[in-house]
Amino acid sequence: MNAADAINRDLEAHAPAIHRSLSPLGRRAVYPRGIPVQAVEARGTDYNATIGQITDGASRPLPLPSMAAVYQLADADRDRVFLYSPIDGVAELRQLWRERQRRHAVADQPSTTPLVTAGLTHSLSIIADLFVPEGRVVATAAPIWGNYRQCFGMRTGADLRTAPGVVDGRFDPRASVDAIGELAPGEPAVVLFNAPSNPGGYSPTVDERAALVDALIAEAERRPLIVVVDDAYAGLVYEDVPAESLFWELIGRHDNLVPIKVDGVTKELSFFGGRVGFLTFAHQPDSPVAKAVESKIKSLIRSTIGSPVSASQMAVLAALRSPDLDAENEAVRGELEHRYRVLGTALAATDRDLLRPMPCNSGCFTVVEVVPDIDCETLRRHLIDNHSTGLVALPPKHMRIAFCSVAADAIPELVERLQTGVRELASA
Amino acid sequence: MNAADAINRDLEAHAPAIHRSLSPLGRRAVYPRGIPVQAVEARGTDYNATIGQITDGASRPLPLPSMAAVYQLADADRDRVFLYSPIDGVAELRQLWRERQRRHAVADQPSTTPLVTAGLTHSLSIIADLFVPEGRVVATAAPIWGNYRQCFGMRTGADLRTAPGVVDGRFDPRASVDAIGELAPGEPAVVLFNAPSNPGGYSPTVDERAALVDALIAEAERRPLIVVVDDAYAGLVYEDVPAESLFWELIGRHDNLVPIKVDGVTKELSFFGGRVGFLTFAHQPDSPVAKAVESKIKSLIRSTIGSPVSASQMAVLAALRSPDLDAENEAVRGELEHRYRVLGTALAATDRDLLRPMPCNSGCFTVVEVVPDIDCETLRRHLIDNHSTGLVALPPKHMRIAFCSVAADAIPELVERLQTGVRELASA
Repeated sequence: MNAADAINRDLEAHAPAIHRSLSPLGRRAVYPRGIPVQAVEARGTDYNATIGQITDGASRPLPLPSMAAVYQLADADRDRVFLYSPIDGVAELRQLWRERQRRHAVADQPSTTPLVTAGLTHSLSIIADLFVPEGRVVATAAPIWGNYRQCFGMRTGADLRTAPGVVDGRFDPRASVDAIGELAPGEPAVVLFNAPSNPGGYSPTVDERAALVDALIAEAERRPLIVVVDDAYAGLVYEDVPAESLFWELIGRHDNLVPIKVDGVTKELSFFGGRVGFLTFAHQPDSPVAKAVESKIKSLIRSTIGSPVSASQMAVLAALRSPDLDAENEAVRGELEHRYRVLGTALAATDRDLLRPMPCNSGCFTVVEVVPDIDCETLRRHLIDNHSTGLVALPPKHMRIAFCSVAADAIPELVERLQTGVRELASA
Repeated sequence: MNAADAINRDLEAHAPAIHRSLSPLGRRAVYPRGIPVQAVEARGTDYNATIGQITDGASRPLPLPSMAAVYQLADADRDRVFLYSPIDGVAELRQLWRERQRRHAVADQPSTTPLVTAGLTHSLSIIADLFVPEGRVVATAAPIWGNYRQCFGMRTGADLRTAPGVVDGRFDPRASVDAIGELAPGEPAVVLFNAPSNPGGYSPTVDERAALVDALIAEAERRPLIVVVDDAYAGLVYEDVPAESLFWELIGRHDNLVPIKVDGVTKELSFFGGRVGFLTFAHQPDSPVAKAVESKIKSLIRSTIGSPVSASQMAVLAALRSPDLDAENEAVRGELEHRYRVLGTALAATDRDLLRPMPCNSGCFTVVEVVPDIDCETLRRHLIDNHSTGLVALPPKHMRIAFCSVAADAIPELVERLQTGVRELASA
């Protein structure tokens, strides 16, 4: 029995829905007994010549002084900036991130120690590698973040299916499950759930979440169901709706339902250039399932990027250790909430024959429907060329406004220009 | 004609060997007209609400103060730490790295502006995605870096073939080409060439390079041949052998021969935790081939990791701008050369019935053959358990010594313990 067979058997025994959902690549992935494993086993030897890092011989790096000067950290932390990260991430960071995640957990809910990736998209691409062979149905509510198409469709050949996430101006909690559509019973599927959403800027209410969970459980009666809980915008909530990850509500609800938590520091800690993401499963740390999944994921991390960025991990660690973290984070959230309210006021005053705002209560974006019969790509170019205003077109009928990158006092004029542009094209 | 068809036609017209070598994923990859493209087009507008970064509304980030304090940089550079990198990398870094690469180029040799990746392994995995469908022959000299198996074999299903890189104690310049073996004429293949090599620590002489280039050209008579020039250890050379990348010697030598330069800051600038790598093709910047290849690679970067690490790129930029860079780099190389000489002296004094050093003149490692009939994995464990000494086993007969991570004054004792361990097992 080879190494992959051994962990595949553990999955079959303890997590059959994961096992049945694996792609061929997911099946053969196993962390090899290569140099990193041999280096771990040699830790603590007097003469350690295993791993290929340039050090002083006492495990300290030899950084170039011009780069070392960039990092304002205590010596031990700065050393780690310049050395390889463990493939699964810096242990202290993983532990602190887990504690942060579990503020929203009930005490006995299992969750693995998060594995560190090169950002949220890397977490998604690892899930695609593990669970999305060509033709696998990946279902989500529209409008969607375009990179889902790249990660799941272009790369691994998913059958990406969508259903309208907003019907008659209201969030439809069944959309991501309805999007699965026709599919033979027993055939695995993947559902992507993102709240606060990109591009919608929406987080479901308590009742809507309950309806969504019911729909997922009902679907899990029919097939193994991987539910990717994309928490990219975690915490950026501005109305009285749940801000906790749906991940915690899905744990232990059905044997066929496999929630996977995807989160990262990009938006949650406002560190876009850092590329630190995480992947978390609903199993106890050190359980056979956790070990099997970690082995597969470490193999994919090693073969796609070598190891995650230790430099950025040490910067994130500085924030996670800081007693000011919550206050600093709240300052960012508060600024975005302020813009959200200004934007809401401005959109409320627009003409419903021109623009129809979609429900929004959170996140970095909002979406408006363009009512007249004009192409939104034409509108986008018209706004750049004639109104010096940049928005994202979501063909055929929607525009995304990133209020995260516009100052509050500029928002009313931005909305005014958008409305003017629509009016001009509609009457042209 | 869709967008991928358009760039595939450019490749077919101007670089048929690249076109014929594309995998199915390589064929369908094209950078989409998604949010990043729309954001680029909206640059300079008065009201820019395109991209999902949290900013102050004037393109400056809102980092958490506890993280911002980590980066000791001028304001404009620190801002870029916290913002997304362009998908192809920070422009100034790409330009400075290109100038650095081209110190070894003849003036009119074409090379693209290097694309930034998440480290050297990420560059390799992108090449695997583009050019290695299941069953594609990937040939290289043994012993090999184990992660080649993960990147090319495990992930994309390459038919990885090797031939002994050292025969009768001498480097065999034909090994990586001979490794291709039986393969129908016209069928594309990939050759991996790594010098200074991991694990061997060898860089070919002038004559050996000439023989290798001849062998590659002869093979290119028979098939499209992607030659991956893995320059991970560039510059770490300690004897009078060429230190320049083989990439420059392969440009324009045969229509079927496609050299790709893979390099990065990990070893070359001693920044293991930074994860900044590069990918460079032998075409003029802005040529149709450069644009087509960049489109495909940006699509793969976007769908695997989102964007490269801007934080580390800014630290590397600080080094590349520094007038002290060469001196700082030479200090590291000089330290490794010192260890290399101490190691050479220690190995020269060992018993040839126990250990046979393989040729070494560069890099971070050396390899020794274990002469008695003992399993090198058993030897590895014996050295940890009984001699507190960590080495990497390269089954069946070789051990790798990473002199980059051992102080010079510890090296003689390390070699002594290795020899003692071999003697003990041989006589057991």
